[in-house]
Amino acid sequence: MKSFRFHRRSDVRRLAFVVATAVLAAGTGLSHARSADQAAIKREVTKQHDASVKRLQDWIALPSIAAEDRNSREGVEYMAKLARDAGFQKVEILETDGKPGVFATLDAGAKKTVGLYFMYDVKQFDPSEWSSPPLEARIVDKPGVGKVIMGRGAVNQKGPESAFLAALHAICGAGKKMPVNLVLVAEGEEEIGSPHIGQLVHRPEVEAALGKTIGVFMPSASQDLDGNVTVSLGAKGVVELELVASGEKWGRGPAKDIHSSLKAMVDSPAWRLVKALDTLVSDDGNTITIDNYPVAPPISAEHKAMIAASIATRNEEKLKQQLGVSHWIDDLPLQAAYERLVSQPTVNIEGLVGGYTGPGGKTVLPHRAVAKLDMRLVPGMKMDDAVAALKAHLAKRGYADIEVNVSGGYDPTSTRSDARLIEAQMDLLRQVGLKPTLWPRNAGSYPGFVFTDPPLSLASGHFGLGHGSGAHAPDEYYVIESSNPSVRGYDGAVMSFVDYLYELAK
Amino acid sequence: MKSFRFHRRSDVRRLAFVVATAVLAAGTGLSHARSADQAAIKREVTKQHDASVKRLQDWIALPSIAAEDRNSREGVEYMAKLARDAGFQKVEILETDGKPGVFATLDAGAKKTVGLYFMYDVKQFDPSEWSSPPLEARIVDKPGVGKVIMGRGAVNQKGPESAFLAALHAICGAGKKMPVNLVLVAEGEEEIGSPHIGQLVHRPEVEAALGKTIGVFMPSASQDLDGNVTVSLGAKGVVELELVASGEKWGRGPAKDIHSSLKAMVDSPAWRLVKALDTLVSDDGNTITIDNYPVAPPISAEHKAMIAASIATRNEEKLKQQLGVSHWIDDLPLQAAYERLVSQPTVNIEGLVGGYTGPGGKTVLPHRAVAKLDMRLVPGMKMDDAVAALKAHLAKRGYADIEVNVSGGYDPTSTRSDARLIEAQMDLLRQVGLKPTLWPRNAGSYPGFVFTDPPLSLASGHFGLGHGSGAHAPDEYYVIESSNPSVRGYDGAVMSFVDYLYELAK
Repeated sequence: MKSFRFHRRSDVRRLAFVVATAVLAAGTGLSHARSADQAAIKREVTKQHDASVKRLQDWIALPSIAAEDRNSREGVEYMAKLARDAGFQKVEILETDGKPGVFATLDAGAKKTVGLYFMYDVKQFDPSEWSSPPLEARIVDKPGVGKVIMGRGAVNQKGPESAFLAALHAICGAGKKMPVNLVLVAEGEEEIGSPHIGQLVHRPEVEAALGKTIGVFMPSASQDLDGNVTVSLGAKGVVELELVASGEKWGRGPAKDIHSSLKAMVDSPAWRLVKALDTLVSDDGNTITIDNYPVAPPISAEHKAMIAASIATRNEEKLKQQLGVSHWIDDLPLQAAYERLVSQPTVNIEGLVGGYTGPGGKTVLPHRAVAKLDMRLVPGMKMDDAVAALKAHLAKRGYADIEVNVSGGYDPTSTRSDARLIEAQMDLLRQVGLKPTLWPRNAGSYPGFVFTDPPLSLASGHFGLGHGSGAHAPDEYYVIESSNPSVRGYDGAVMSFVDYLYELAK
Repeated sequence: MKSFRFHRRSDVRRLAFVVATAVLAAGTGLSHARSADQAAIKREVTKQHDASVKRLQDWIALPSIAAEDRNSREGVEYMAKLARDAGFQKVEILETDGKPGVFATLDAGAKKTVGLYFMYDVKQFDPSEWSSPPLEARIVDKPGVGKVIMGRGAVNQKGPESAFLAALHAICGAGKKMPVNLVLVAEGEEEIGSPHIGQLVHRPEVEAALGKTIGVFMPSASQDLDGNVTVSLGAKGVVELELVASGEKWGRGPAKDIHSSLKAMVDSPAWRLVKALDTLVSDDGNTITIDNYPVAPPISAEHKAMIAASIATRNEEKLKQQLGVSHWIDDLPLQAAYERLVSQPTVNIEGLVGGYTGPGGKTVLPHRAVAKLDMRLVPGMKMDDAVAALKAHLAKRGYADIEVNVSGGYDPTSTRSDARLIEAQMDLLRQVGLKPTLWPRNAGSYPGFVFTDPPLSLASGHFGLGHGSGAHAPDEYYVIESSNPSVRGYDGAVMSFVDYLYELAK
């Protein structure tokens, strides 16, 4: 090393990458031929680094937001172009009753076929809350983390998805044959609860193509700040809805905002909303009290054990700091808090909005007040049952006039730990020196049900090394150059996808 | 009338005015000399009509909004100029810890002195909700009402205030001597609850000047759509405040918005706000259930009788239609609803705002949620006691962390029906052919307490013919030319102020 000189930042970065991947590769048992192929691809990944990051930056600059009816057409066309550029031979834009999606296939003449689930939409954002402009996708230094790309969609989900596409570019650039065939479904409504995902997946040609896959995965950034990886066996379902109390529907209270002094003789839809909301959860806000609500099965011993195994590698204080939380519910210890996280349904208030919401006050009696709720579901609970129970509960309590406007949602999803999609992940992660743990299910949601439920009944999950955070929040980021050798940067994430495809081909 | 030709709209307007005022003046017992003076002034009012309306339009074009920290300096300087132009010899801008006010005196060498309370600020507005641009103060046709000036502040309170100033311009223009001396106090924080009105009124020179008055009144538009006038003997007090639940103060829940899936292991400040709000009022939202809250005295037989007398002239269906209300609280008949209106305190939700408030949903667990409340008080209740009871109630129920941020408010105000300020109104209204009724108190609030409470202990009220509506709402208006001869237009309103000053001089 003595003879080396590092004058440029990119040289330092490359050395860091070589060292990090050397560490990660230590003790692996990869076969010689596969190793040689992958070494060539790795060189290509390094060579293409700047172009790949640029591709991600360009993508972040075009935010598609279904909730704001923003850029969905431009977004789906861009998604189709990204797929074509990455080597998918057949790329189609599919219309739905909502936003369009992309269906693409890459036939490598391989024995096995792998399904991919992408989203091209991102969460809403307020630029004033960001320390770096959310569409500029600047590379910024994040102390203790490294160089990160900061922008809306950086980790959820353009960063990991672009890294997966970069893997295809690199395999092609290195002149290697794709180890598996691919079937891609991309939607533009993930952030509003995927109301039309079924219209994409259940089209005969899509269903037929997916039916040939060994399972479907979504690229993700699965490492935490310490480099730990958990492999999740599913995800909660979710319902997003608005509860609307209004004078119009109630037949009491005003049909428009009136002067607040009239409260003495006119009923208030805002108080009605508060009273109705009050009946939905226990006094501490943590137990659902909706009559006849679907019941969550008790957490299994196997899932408890998974959590216990995972906790060993988690830093509770760091996690609390990251979330700005000083106590879990009921002051639970981490094990119990995580058991609650994976096994309990939730009824959460995302937003409250009624009457005057600006600075200071305004003496009105609002004619309308809205609570935006999201309800998470665990296996054994169905979205339709949850919504029906909520409606019946409100009606029984005398709140039949309160509108329940469901904007999206889907059932929970589960995949068995012995599915090839999962076993291949565990094998690969162990090969690169990590000690992956299984995790019962994500507390967040993704519409894996559309793949895991009949008629497809496929395995479904997430995969990808690397790290990012801030999904749905300001300053969302995805690591490009990691300051922790145990956490992969962008090129390391790209290589994780290369390795996973080779592993799945076995 | 046969020889008349009406080619121009303004001619029609003038004739309508002459007819209307002739009707209103029928059967009066005004003394001859006073009649002659007032006839000359009336001609001057007609002559100055266009200039007076233009003055109002220019004023509306400059909205001062304390809640938005908007134009208070420009507004107070404009208010001072309006006073100087109207003949006040001494006009001073007074600073406070909040927005500045105006103190002005007009010494006519008269025997009696009358106090005036003005506000130069207006309520917030959202132009997108208006059918006519709120700062352009256009003259628009309002079916069934006539030609109205539509704009923010049109009736609350610039229209009536400008009509009062037009009365002074007309008296001067007609070469007549002012029948009374005037002392004016104008503030710029009425719409945020007059937090610094005491700093204006209790300055030694202001208190001394007001101490010489027979009472203080605020120009208003007191006629309803049928022309009826009620003379109010006071107003409720009010407190405006925000209840804020936050992870920071609570020490539970997150210190920033986090992903909503974490609701399964993290407490929710939004639910906490709902649970705390729920304890403040009965299930129907109409009875205050705050522990040890100040108690309203029962309504008196005298007040019930006032309401009964007033009801005879009120059109309940029209009122309901105007408010977009189909039932009063508890399906009360109008008498009982009005008894509730004048005698009962309220706790009203003006606004709810927490987490994501935009279109669609956003899966966050908000770290903060706010309820904007206004609480109306009747005589016998003190603002400080109400706030103290609310805080103690929250603390006792375990919600001591919920912030109670009072932004403004004041005690209720009452004036006896035999005060000269009131008797002069009743006399004058009867003289012009109206059948005024007394009203126990306004359900809305104004800071009359600062005049009626010690040390000043003055009478205080509102006066002014004419009609307007939409205070605090879109499409606020003030009638310029009335299509109902029983309802005065702008010039008729101006003349009501002229007549009132002459009446007070007696």
